[in-house]
Amino acid sequence: LGQKFGDKKNPLLLSVRSGARESMPGMMDTILNLGLNDETVEALAKSSGNPRFAWDSYRRFIQMYGDVVMGVQKLPTEDEEPFEILIEQVKKKLLGNAHADDTDLSAENLQVLVAEFKKLVKSRTGKAFPNDPWDQLRGSVGAVFSSWMNDRAIVYRRKYNIPVEWGTAVNVQSMVFMMNAQGEDVVAGVRTPDPVADLKKVLPSAHKELLRICKVLEKHFRDVQDFEFTIEEEKVFMLQTRNGKRTGLAAVRIACEMVEEKLISWKDAITRIPADDLDQLLAPVFDQAAVKKVKTIAKGLPAGPGAATGKVYFNADRAEAAKAKGEEVLLVRLETSPEDLRGMIAANGILTARGGVSSHAALVARQMGKICVCGAAGVQINYAKRTMKIGKTNFKEGDFLSIDGTSGEIYAGEVKTAPSEVVQGLLENKASAKRSRTYKNFTQIMAWCAKASKMQVRTNADTPGQVQNAIAFGATGVGLCRTEHMFFEGDRIDAVREMILADNEGDRRKAVKKLLPYQRKDFEGIFKALNGLPGTIRLLDPPLHEFLPHDKKQISDLAKKLNVQPAEIKKRVDELHEFNPMLGHRGCRLAISYPEVAEMQVRAIFEAAANMQKKNIKVNPEIMVPLVGFKKELELQAEIVHRVAKEVSKDKGVKLKYLVGTMIEVPRGALTADEVAEVAEFFSFGTNDLTQMTMGMSRDDSGSFLPNYEEQEIVSNNPFAVIDQTGVGQLMEIAVTKGRSTRKNIKLGICGEHGGEPSSVKFCHSLGLNYVSCSPFRVPVARLAAAQAALA
Amino acid sequence: LGQKFGDKKNPLLLSVRSGARESMPGMMDTILNLGLNDETVEALAKSSGNPRFAWDSYRRFIQMYGDVVMGVQKLPTEDEEPFEILIEQVKKKLLGNAHADDTDLSAENLQVLVAEFKKLVKSRTGKAFPNDPWDQLRGSVGAVFSSWMNDRAIVYRRKYNIPVEWGTAVNVQSMVFMMNAQGEDVVAGVRTPDPVADLKKVLPSAHKELLRICKVLEKHFRDVQDFEFTIEEEKVFMLQTRNGKRTGLAAVRIACEMVEEKLISWKDAITRIPADDLDQLLAPVFDQAAVKKVKTIAKGLPAGPGAATGKVYFNADRAEAAKAKGEEVLLVRLETSPEDLRGMIAANGILTARGGVSSHAALVARQMGKICVCGAAGVQINYAKRTMKIGKTNFKEGDFLSIDGTSGEIYAGEVKTAPSEVVQGLLENKASAKRSRTYKNFTQIMAWCAKASKMQVRTNADTPGQVQNAIAFGATGVGLCRTEHMFFEGDRIDAVREMILADNEGDRRKAVKKLLPYQRKDFEGIFKALNGLPGTIRLLDPPLHEFLPHDKKQISDLAKKLNVQPAEIKKRVDELHEFNPMLGHRGCRLAISYPEVAEMQVRAIFEAAANMQKKNIKVNPEIMVPLVGFKKELELQAEIVHRVAKEVSKDKGVKLKYLVGTMIEVPRGALTADEVAEVAEFFSFGTNDLTQMTMGMSRDDSGSFLPNYEEQEIVSNNPFAVIDQTGVGQLMEIAVTKGRSTRKNIKLGICGEHGGEPSSVKFCHSLGLNYVSCSPFRVPVARLAAAQAALA
Repeated sequence: LGQKFGDKKNPLLLSVRSGARESMPGMMDTILNLGLNDETVEALAKSSGNPRFAWDSYRRFIQMYGDVVMGVQKLPTEDEEPFEILIEQVKKKLLGNAHADDTDLSAENLQVLVAEFKKLVKSRTGKAFPNDPWDQLRGSVGAVFSSWMNDRAIVYRRKYNIPVEWGTAVNVQSMVFMMNAQGEDVVAGVRTPDPVADLKKVLPSAHKELLRICKVLEKHFRDVQDFEFTIEEEKVFMLQTRNGKRTGLAAVRIACEMVEEKLISWKDAITRIPADDLDQLLAPVFDQAAVKKVKTIAKGLPAGPGAATGKVYFNADRAEAAKAKGEEVLLVRLETSPEDLRGMIAANGILTARGGVSSHAALVARQMGKICVCGAAGVQINYAKRTMKIGKTNFKEGDFLSIDGTSGEIYAGEVKTAPSEVVQGLLENKASAKRSRTYKNFTQIMAWCAKASKMQVRTNADTPGQVQNAIAFGATGVGLCRTEHMFFEGDRIDAVREMILADNEGDRRKAVKKLLPYQRKDFEGIFKALNGLPGTIRLLDPPLHEFLPHDKKQISDLAKKLNVQPAEIKKRVDELHEFNPMLGHRGCRLAISYPEVAEMQVRAIFEAAANMQKKNIKVNPEIMVPLVGFKKELELQAEIVHRVAKEVSKDKGVKLKYLVGTMIEVPRGALTADEVAEVAEFFSFGTNDLTQMTMGMSRDDSGSFLPNYEEQEIVSNNPFAVIDQTGVGQLMEIAVTKGRSTRKNIKLGICGEHGGEPSSVKFCHSLGLNYVSCSPFRVPVARLAAAQAALA
Repeated sequence: LGQKFGDKKNPLLLSVRSGARESMPGMMDTILNLGLNDETVEALAKSSGNPRFAWDSYRRFIQMYGDVVMGVQKLPTEDEEPFEILIEQVKKKLLGNAHADDTDLSAENLQVLVAEFKKLVKSRTGKAFPNDPWDQLRGSVGAVFSSWMNDRAIVYRRKYNIPVEWGTAVNVQSMVFMMNAQGEDVVAGVRTPDPVADLKKVLPSAHKELLRICKVLEKHFRDVQDFEFTIEEEKVFMLQTRNGKRTGLAAVRIACEMVEEKLISWKDAITRIPADDLDQLLAPVFDQAAVKKVKTIAKGLPAGPGAATGKVYFNADRAEAAKAKGEEVLLVRLETSPEDLRGMIAANGILTARGGVSSHAALVARQMGKICVCGAAGVQINYAKRTMKIGKTNFKEGDFLSIDGTSGEIYAGEVKTAPSEVVQGLLENKASAKRSRTYKNFTQIMAWCAKASKMQVRTNADTPGQVQNAIAFGATGVGLCRTEHMFFEGDRIDAVREMILADNEGDRRKAVKKLLPYQRKDFEGIFKALNGLPGTIRLLDPPLHEFLPHDKKQISDLAKKLNVQPAEIKKRVDELHEFNPMLGHRGCRLAISYPEVAEMQVRAIFEAAANMQKKNIKVNPEIMVPLVGFKKELELQAEIVHRVAKEVSKDKGVKLKYLVGTMIEVPRGALTADEVAEVAEFFSFGTNDLTQMTMGMSRDDSGSFLPNYEEQEIVSNNPFAVIDQTGVGQLMEIAVTKGRSTRKNIKLGICGEHGGEPSSVKFCHSLGLNYVSCSPFRVPVARLAAAQAALA
């Protein structure tokens, strides 16, 4: 092999491929045509009898190698790749048309281009393009290895939790072919490939062979394959195969159908679906009424299902900045490259003018669960002017656009979106939706999950509607009902403010009394929705100043309403000001200062429970005391709960069944869980605050340094999204062990937002928690993750 | 005994005494004369031949029992005890003079008073005064037991860290005597006792016997005794003895003299002195020049040594409130009672009009190390008008007064104070001070401590002067030098602000460069003062906004100085605003965002070190990275330190010896100490922040709930003063164990303010720390506590 490589008369070409377990953006995947140089290209031109292909291959090799190995990149001032600009210039100069087809270039034209390409490489890098095949090989191998630590690869790994330790291998293969367009062009979207079915007409035997190989591969790997092949003289050659990337929608369908085909078991099906991707089945579609009113202005390839609407941006940085300002964003590009990754993450949806369903934009969008329409030829972008024309409609950056990634249709303006089939079937009980394949597959998967799971999945919900939705998604109770959210509804905020402004217990009791009927009604609604399922209700948590107005106008309005001086309110607002409210007078600290508030809340819960029981509705309340760091704090609150329970029970003549427990969110609470468990009948990990305190990191303020921390790999994930198992997880483990040492059967759960994140759910399973709790729309994801954890 | 108790003809009287290990304010100590009632008082009047004493004893019994057992207390509207008011009323009515001596009251007068007392008890409590001796006994025993949980006892236990679990016993004794005044009167300050020496003239044999008993007791207990006796028919009876309370000054002297007398060993001497009390030897005295300019307006008994100046308050609540507002306070009362305890804690000093050196005011003041003058007869207080007259000078509440608790002298106005003899001797090297007994005793104790201690004591100091002081007090290095304090000196704050306002690395580097020479000079001073002792220097810690002005005027001044628009500064201030700055962009997070700042500080340290070494001054820097929660954070900083060290070493041609380590102040840092110790050569526990984060409790904001937490015994101490061993201490232990598992000989210290608090110092010893570090004036206390811990 070594002898033939670089042989001037009968040269062998090599390709270098990354051996990474997963291909990822930014990673160097393949470098083709190694071995081509000024001498060998001539030899190949002769031996192949096709000098045009030989020179075109050489041109492609210089372009690819110059870009990925030598680092000739687009400058910020350039809107296109510099090699592509050269191609257009040469086409214009030699053919008189910058947009002529590549195939119009002759072998001679390509020789000119090769010379221009080499000049470009020299001028941009200061180094000549290597002529020695062995230098080319060394350069390529080094580039593949070092691309593992490439910026874009790091961003991608972070998003998909791929450990940096995995690293990559490098495969060197001899090349068997040269052809019109190479695989990379397909991936880059430079060429839109023909459908495989067309092959039947051109090369029927090759087509047949290809189908046979498909079946063998799928049966062997028992999974959908993404494979590369080439056909030389009607003979099919396999280059590479790996499990195919797929959208959540496809993953669910593939899993279900493979079970039907008996290729895999139902347990396999569960493990095959990335839990996070289930979100895509709940993604919105366009509202049918709204979409009828707008006109399709163009159509592209449907490349990432779902409906997206937002303001168009033509550049990743600006898209990211707009998103950071709270705008809904669509990224529109001629084609995307790994440099656009941040913009794609920021966007609701991606639209490209070029490239097929296997282009970079399409592949990445599907992995991310982003809505994507690609190859929409009618889209003309002027990057310099930041404008776009689609058909006859003109757009400038910031204008609204809507795209349907399921149909490929593009609409001008903002179009209302509607729930997905799964959501319509489960939450709106629509018969048409229930007949859909997606709905059936989804419910099948959920049914399998129920069989496999050890952990329950509850929901964080504050209203009866939210509770109903979550139950429809399979939640088996409420893990966190935040009572303070109810304080803002309607007139009751006035009573809340009266309570806060009271400067003695008597006045406070009066104000609190006004709140009782409201809260009781709230809880009746929740209990009714729960219909006997357990419901964890957290007592008042946030600092009081959050309920008071802070600007002058609002203060004077409130003063009028309450018939007090504005200065009095201002004074109380100032008194309540805290330097670090996160660590201030909140949670059970409030209830210890003002026991009458806790008493009212507990009374509302028990009166609601009693009223429901009288209507033959079962209730199962679990009263949760927030921010406990000391056993005595919980003890003082538990005394109130038990006393009020007795009183209500006597008044209403019903027996009340309930639990009293606490959130574990203060590190000291975790460290002294053995003491706390003497009183607590359950623990619920409040991992949001536990993370903030354990790391000494305010979530609200971490924006100024956390992105840098992720970049420098100080943290491997955003710790507010994914549980930091080493630090925060260690405290959780201490709390679990200590809690159980005191109370063997203590009920354990999690109600932080991590409860809906798959890797965190799996960690909770490994700790032996009884349940996780998350927002209603994350319930399916958590259920799938819980099932996967149980099967692992 | 039971038969005689309550016998109407030959009654036996009992006394009930608390059996608590320590007497404490609020605890019921003694109840005398149990068994007196309408019948037995007549029998005793007859049998003793002294009806006046019999009735007076009965009167006293009702008063004491009514107060402490039945709860007849002063109402908020009353300025005196209600029983005392009755005495004055009866004296006025029967003798025509409310201020007549008690001894002027005849047996008949006292019978009237007894009847009035009983009426008072009935009207205030709704219950008749118990006539049955057994009821009296049961009531008394119950009252002693339950007084353990008395509010004032709780306050006292909290201050002196006496565990609630100790509880109390009750001793019942038969009484051998009745006399003119009873022991309680002395304690309450109602009577000022004669000196024991006077007894020699009146009862020489009893005096001799008393001296003999003194010697026996002191030799037996090998400690100063506080004992009670009575003399009946010239015979001395012992009632009770216990180790005597003493001031810090006295404790040091007693310990030293007992060693000289060979009663105790030098090790015993160390354990005999409450470490906290050593503070008193460093307490200020009046400035001699200042005091010569003011006139003594009155003189009382010197009851608590030291000089105090402050605004007078006549009521404990108002004194406490004034102190909370930041005023320096003197509490002035006719006499104090346990109800005044909070006011006494708040006050710099206490002045009373009545009572001797064994009165309540004097005893409690000495225990607390408060400056106290008592029994100053010239002081006339009008509680109602909140005014006072001393001699001819009129005062109203809030006026300044100064008292000398060593001489008893009282001065009008504010008088400048001066350092104590110990301070003058050690820090000012004054020969006269060095000849003083106090100085000699103090240095003797410190020398013994050095022999006994295992832990070093370092100091938290930011200037060469502070370092020198601490070394004079025996510090063996600096445990915490806060570099940011240096940022505020002189003009350099402008460069700091320029650095913060820079919006790119280049400008930032320029501004930072200006700071380098300042910081280098700072460190040269510190190294010179340390003269080879180790010095831990912490890199920049606080959030940047602390260095920027926040009000309009200051912002526009700065804008002019820096030649920028005020809006630009305002914008940066707003950008830097954080919701929870404690948990925000600070500590090493800053240095990771702006490595050039850390680089400048490290360069300044090493250049200063090199310069000093060239002058043959040894240096021993330990570079401390704050707020580390992740090993990688420290790694990134350590890289800078090592790189700069190499550069400076090369430039200056000297070898540099140094350590790199971290504060352990973020819970995650403690939990992952095994990882952190892979890089850290030392840990220093930053227990201030560690406490805040572990408890989720902001020190600045805890004022709104922490007092209530102490009252309800949720926390047994203020956790920011005394280490919470159960929670925070557990994390420290985890960090010590894990740190040592990676690096066996890792250097361990503490630099939080707890490092100067005795019980925390002892806890640090038990963890095996190498040193504690505290403010310079706390160094002696920490040294004594460290020695005690080693001897325990």
